[in-house]
Amino acid sequence: MSLKAFEMSPKGTVIELDEILSNVKYDKDGLVAAIAQQHDTKEVLMLAYMNEKSIRETLETGQVCYWSRSRQTYWRKGESSGHRQSLVSMAFDCDGDAILLQVDQKGPACHTNRRDCFFFEVKDGQVIVESDPQ
Amino acid sequence: MSLKAFEMSPKGTVIELDEILSNVKYDKDGLVAAIAQQHDTKEVLMLAYMNEKSIRETLETGQVCYWSRSRQTYWRKGESSGHRQSLVSMAFDCDGDAILLQVDQKGPACHTNRRDCFFFEVKDGQVIVESDPQ
Repeated sequence: MSLKAFEMSPKGTVIELDEILSNVKYDKDGLVAAIAQQHDTKEVLMLAYMNEKSIRETLETGQVCYWSRSRQTYWRKGESSGHRQSLVSMAFDCDGDAILLQVDQKGPACHTNRRDCFFFEVKDGQVIVESDPQ
Repeated sequence: MSLKAFEMSPKGTVIELDEILSNVKYDKDGLVAAIAQQHDTKEVLMLAYMNEKSIRETLETGQVCYWSRSRQTYWRKGESSGHRQSLVSMAFDCDGDAILLQVDQKGPACHTNRRDCFFFEVKDGQVIVESDPQ
């Protein structure tokens, strides 16, 4: 099955979390893309990956936990830097291959100490660095 | 090389688009995740995938073109439905494995005819469908 089974459900339909989590379209590494958006300003901060265990931990603790593909380990955002991401809400998309996290990001989200990760912006056929690393 | 070579560059640094595109961290299928955000309301509409050719086409035409993983073909958003996505701006993230598209979405972005794809929202340990399909 997949989340497609539920996609035409009307507003207000209640689905068990386990039902959703077992039908998320994880990739071959068991991962799903997760977008972090600052809940009040609506800026998109970053994109990272979660597995089922990190999704559950995030919901239980209220602190966002990803799976780091480069380090191959759980990545509790801000654990070393102090730049923590608190979870405000979590939503899955229509076909279960993406997650949108509304978060409250303390300080910079990017490892370059910029507020967000999307600082290489295309302008007039070139790319401009849009903010300074700190 | 990777975009990491440019990540500590100061604001205003200009990089050739070809330099960026050849250093995007495409996956084994040649794809990179792309987030579409409505440029004025800042709602996150959807997440899909692009390859280098669809990125170039999007920049050239100003109409967003993805690669459909399910149909294994180019997916010119709205070509059949009329629900087109016009590009407002495009940005790459710090390590070149995600793209943020600011778009102007005509009508619904989701194939269920909802405005956005993230309608399975976690609330109190369950998942609630947050909007009606049209």
